[in-house]
Order: sequence, then structure tokens, then C-alpha cells
Amino acid sequence: MIFEIIARDPGCEARCGRLETAHGTVDTPVFMPVGTQGSVKGISPDELEALGAHMILGNTYHLHMRPGAERVARLGGLHTFMHWPRSLLTDSGGFQVFSLAKINKIEEEGVAFQSHIDGSRHLLSPETAVKIQMRLGSDIAMVFDECNSYPVSYQYASESMQRTVRWARRSKAAHDQAKQALFGIIQGSVFLDLRKSCLEQLEAIGFDGYALGSLSVGESKEEMLEVLETITPMMPGQNPRYLMGVGTPEDLVEGVRLGVDMFDCVMPTRNARNGMLFTSQGSIQIKNSTYADDGGPIEEGCPCYTCRRFSRAYLRHLFMARELLAYRLNTLHNLHYYLKLMADMRQAIAEGRFEAWRQVFYAARGKE
Amino acid sequence: MIFEIIARDPGCEARCGRLETAHGTVDTPVFMPVGTQGSVKGISPDELEALGAHMILGNTYHLHMRPGAERVARLGGLHTFMHWPRSLLTDSGGFQVFSLAKINKIEEEGVAFQSHIDGSRHLLSPETAVKIQMRLGSDIAMVFDECNSYPVSYQYASESMQRTVRWARRSKAAHDQAKQALFGIIQGSVFLDLRKSCLEQLEAIGFDGYALGSLSVGESKEEMLEVLETITPMMPGQNPRYLMGVGTPEDLVEGVRLGVDMFDCVMPTRNARNGMLFTSQGSIQIKNSTYADDGGPIEEGCPCYTCRRFSRAYLRHLFMARELLAYRLNTLHNLHYYLKLMADMRQAIAEGRFEAWRQVFYAARGKE
Repeated sequence: MIFEIIARDPGCEARCGRLETAHGTVDTPVFMPVGTQGSVKGISPDELEALGAHMILGNTYHLHMRPGAERVARLGGLHTFMHWPRSLLTDSGGFQVFSLAKINKIEEEGVAFQSHIDGSRHLLSPETAVKIQMRLGSDIAMVFDECNSYPVSYQYASESMQRTVRWARRSKAAHDQAKQALFGIIQGSVFLDLRKSCLEQLEAIGFDGYALGSLSVGESKEEMLEVLETITPMMPGQNPRYLMGVGTPEDLVEGVRLGVDMFDCVMPTRNARNGMLFTSQGSIQIKNSTYADDGGPIEEGCPCYTCRRFSRAYLRHLFMARELLAYRLNTLHNLHYYLKLMADMRQAIAEGRFEAWRQVFYAARGKE
Repeated sequence: MIFEIIARDPGCEARCGRLETAHGTVDTPVFMPVGTQGSVKGISPDELEALGAHMILGNTYHLHMRPGAERVARLGGLHTFMHWPRSLLTDSGGFQVFSLAKINKIEEEGVAFQSHIDGSRHLLSPETAVKIQMRLGSDIAMVFDECNSYPVSYQYASESMQRTVRWARRSKAAHDQAKQALFGIIQGSVFLDLRKSCLEQLEAIGFDGYALGSLSVGESKEEMLEVLETITPMMPGQNPRYLMGVGTPEDLVEGVRLGVDMFDCVMPTRNARNGMLFTSQGSIQIKNSTYADDGGPIEEGCPCYTCRRFSRAYLRHLFMARELLAYRLNTLHNLHYYLKLMADMRQAIAEGRFEAWRQVFYAARGKE
């Protein structure tokens, strides 16, 4: 993997880069749609390509539970299995083990848990998490980490962070695939000294990129911003910086301003399936009865597949009638919105006018 | 509407035709995918066009209940509303009123019923059913009829058929849209003399096409075939003949052999959503564990979107994981199968070798 910075905004930390993986070039800052179980919910790989997605995320926990990494490997790896020719990042399974599975024990060795699907017993450790990701054949793998919920005591966050560092070291030792990059994950909850210490220790081990984990897990926007403002500038500038599981359009704009290069979040896809659609003026609920006779598109002038063809009235009808097409058309619009937002930010950075662009972005939403 | 016979098979009643509607040319025999609520479940209008669908069906009952025909009319009609540029046929609502709604009373005036969605009270009559279809703006409308379940007494079938004829006369009187064709519906359950009498009376009224209703509603294959074999040749040859709500691939082949020009059925789309996929050798259940490691397509050599890209193993995974993409990919394959079957039959008829083609069709399924 090669990462190159190609532009920096003069007014803030924002930067544009180019990430070369075994499956092509990814322009950064990048938003990665989430393909939890080997499919970005509601749309096809062709549609993802047409939307301009350069990299998507696959969930190691889900794919390990079903259909299994061995099976995916036998079928040619995750790219082939799901027919996705571009770049893929896999998480380590840490987040899902801590949020979905029934945890039996967290030990130095790893986490013993029961599958949320069938209750079967498994152990996920740094070694197994890395092995699974190598089998899946993603372009970027993540170290196995412990995700903290919010709030968590300083004491627990500190012990957990130290374990995450030890697990990161073991993850790197277990990793043996030249074509696959490996990123470290900075933990430490909202405690800045723990985050700093974690980052320093991870840098000493040395990774291809660095990620911030356990943010947007219940803490206030102020707390999240404080971590971002303090830690992001300390993250090595020559490596990609990845803010995991974040977030709203505003979160992306603030992350980019502070120098983040990569994001992933289920928000555009999940909200689409719940009928919440993004526009430059904010979001709308398509089920609202005001749209029942509205012949206009979700957003006037939006060039997405959905807006070029279908009215709000039709989309509302599909959603009320629970038609499958509703979820797809809503998802296409929301992902277009997110990916266009990233493209707009990249262009603004390249032209050295990110701060001015950011003011227009907030003004359209009625915010300063 | 213009209907022209362009080829006849020398060995049977099968025929090829060309149906010109206000929205284009439909090659017959034609299979119409069902777009119940203004969407063929799981796929987009673009995909329908790419599949080669020339005409689809919309359900008057469903669209009347939600979003309402007045609303669809205000939004430009059903073609515009659902972004479908080709031909559209609407049923009269009869079948759904008798199968879905809570019937309060069947009277000479019409049927009083309660909506299956919200329990609201409605009356569907020949006049309202025709008026709704004129508002929807379909290319072909159907008269309002009483659908018989199976079995039904001769006495009831006879009275019901006579009422259907009176309703057909009123439907025609209420119909006043030159661009929209109106078809009569032959009832009479499995009683051949009732079916004949119904057909004669409908012909005396005069319609643009004639349909067979209340078949494939529980009677045996033999009983259905007997009605088809007896009645189809009596239906006026210069008008399209439409077998409503039928059927399996075998049913389509037998219908075409007997001179039917038009079919509709939820089978390819509904079965797709239940994981049942059609192949030339018969159908398969994709959830079967034998497909878990199967890297081949649903059917070797199938040129459909799904088979060109995805393995049975991936489709099984998507189906087991209840991913939305499963329903779409399965639907694309099954509709391709149905539409290709019709195209193959048209070609065999045009080349005068329908009977030979039919033998190959059955031989592939291990049948004589």
C-alpha cells in the first residue's frame, strides 16, 4: 500500500491524498460504505462503482460467523465472492464482539463469546482476527482491539488500552501478507493522556495507518471533538488516519478539517432503510405526509439515480408500502450524498478553499 | 390498440402476435411481470426494461387502497408515477377484493368491502373499477368481475357468471378512454357450458380482448387444461387472449400451445423472494446446504445479470443472511427465465417448430 499526500488546505489540517492498494486507487479523504455481510445493504456492487465508491468495509465478525472466512477463501476471497473489484477494508471484529455477541470472558488471550446467530462458542484473538482477515483477502486489515463503551472509568480505560496495545503487537506479529496493509487502532476512551500514550506505543510498533476507535459511542460531540482536535494532529502525517464508525455529515466535515483521511459509517445506508434522506439543507423523513403529493425529487438538482427518476410522492408510497425498491432508491440517494460530500471536500482542499466551503456547507443547513 | 397475428404454428394453436398500445409494441405470447403496488417487487423499472419486459401489470385494488388513483392521476398517471415507459395492464380489482379484503356484501351494484390495510370501507363496482383504471391511465383495463374460488357449486357459478356478464356490460358503458383498451373476463369456474355461455355473451357486448379468470385457484391441472382446451379455441382469434394469474413454466407452455397470447403471474417474483429459482431442468431451493460451497452460477450458460456475476454460494449466503440484494438477484434471474421462455416460444412458433421445441422443454425436466 502506498499513501501520498497530494494537497493540503492552507487554513486547517485538511489534506487530500491518494491511497494505492492492490485493488486500485482511493482518493482521500474517503468515505467507505459499510458492507457488513458481504453486501452494502440494498444495492449492488455495480451501483457502488457507479456511485464512485473506491473502497468499502467488510465486517470480520459477521463474515466469520456466516458464511465463514475459510469458505470465502475457498471461493476466491471476499472481492471475488461479492464481486467487488475495488478496494476493501475489513475491521477486526472487535467492535461487533463487544456490541453484538454474548461475551463470555475477556482475557489476555482474546475474547470468548457466543455467536448472535446460533449461540455457537468462539474465541477471537489478535492472531485469529488477523488470520481471518488474511483469508478474506481485504486490502487493509485492522488489529484486534478492545472497544470501550461510554462512559468507562479511567482505570478500566487504561487497562483496556494497554491490553489493546499488547494485542496490536500480537496482531502485527501474526500478520504475514505483503499485499494487505495493517492499521493500528488508538483506544483510551475520552481520556486524552491515554489516547496519546496509546498512539505513541502503536507508532513504536509501526503500522501502515492509524485509526481512532470507540468514538461516537455515546460521548458528547464536544468530547469527541476534543479527542479529534488533540489526537489527529499527533497521528503520523505520512500515514492514513482513519476515524472508525463516524458519522454524520457534520462529523465528516469536522474530521476532514482536523486531518482525517478515512471514514466509515452505517448512517447513510441504515437511515435510508428507515426513510431518512440527506439533503444539503439537512435531512427529511420521507414518510412525512407532506410528501404524499410532492412531484419533486428528494433534492432539486441532485444528479443521483433516484432523484433523476422518482418523485418524493413515489418514494413515500414505496416506503409506506414497504416495497423493496424503497430501500434501494433511498440508499442510492444517501450514498450519493455522502460520496459527493467527500468529493466536494477533496476539491475544496485541492483548491485551497476548504474553510470557505465549510461555511457554505453550514449556511445551507441554517447554521453558522 | 392494434393486435396483429404474425405467425401461426402448423402443429397446434400457438400463434405469435404484435400488440400496439399507446406505449409501444408488445410481442405475444407475452408474460407480464406483476407490479402490484406500482413496483415489480425487488427490481427497478430500468432492470425490467433491460430484461426485455414489454408490458407489466398493476393491481387496481392495491393502488386504489394506497396511494389512491386520484393521487396517481394528479402525479401524471401510473406510467409517470412509477417511471415505466412501456405498456401497462391493470386488473379490475376483482381478484383482490375476493381474496384479500374483508367482503361485507356482494350486490348487483358491486362489492362492499373493507381495506386489508386500515379497515376503511369501500365499494367497488363496474363503474368505479373502470373509473379508477382510467385515472391510472393503463394501456389495457379489465372489466370488473366476480372471481370464483374453487370448488363452487354449479348454481353459484352460474349466477355469479351472469352477474359478471351484467358487470361487463356496465364496465363497457362506463369506459370512455380511446387510448385505453378494455378486455372482458370469462368466468364460469370449471363448468364448460357456463364458460361458453359467458364467452358468447361477452362477444356480443364486444371487447378489445378476452381473458380467462378464476383458473389456477385450486382446481386440478386436468380441470384447468380442460377449460383451456375447450374455451381457448372458441375465443375470437383476431383479439388477444389472456390467461389471468397463470402460472408455472409448464402452464405457460400449455397455454401457448392452446393459443393463449398473454399471461401474468407472481410466481417468478414471489418464488424468488422465497429462494426458489427456475432453471431449464426444474427449480432449485437456493437455501439448500449443497450450494454453500458452490462457485457456479444458478444455471450454467444463463446470460442473466445474476448468473454472469454471482455464485450459488454467494446467493445462498445472501439469502441466509436475509440481505436485500438476495431478493433482487433472485428476482432478476427468475424474470429472465420467464421472459426468455416466452421469447424462445415466440421464436419456435415463428419458425414453425413449436411442438419439437416443447418436447425439448419437457425432456430437459426429465418429462415426456
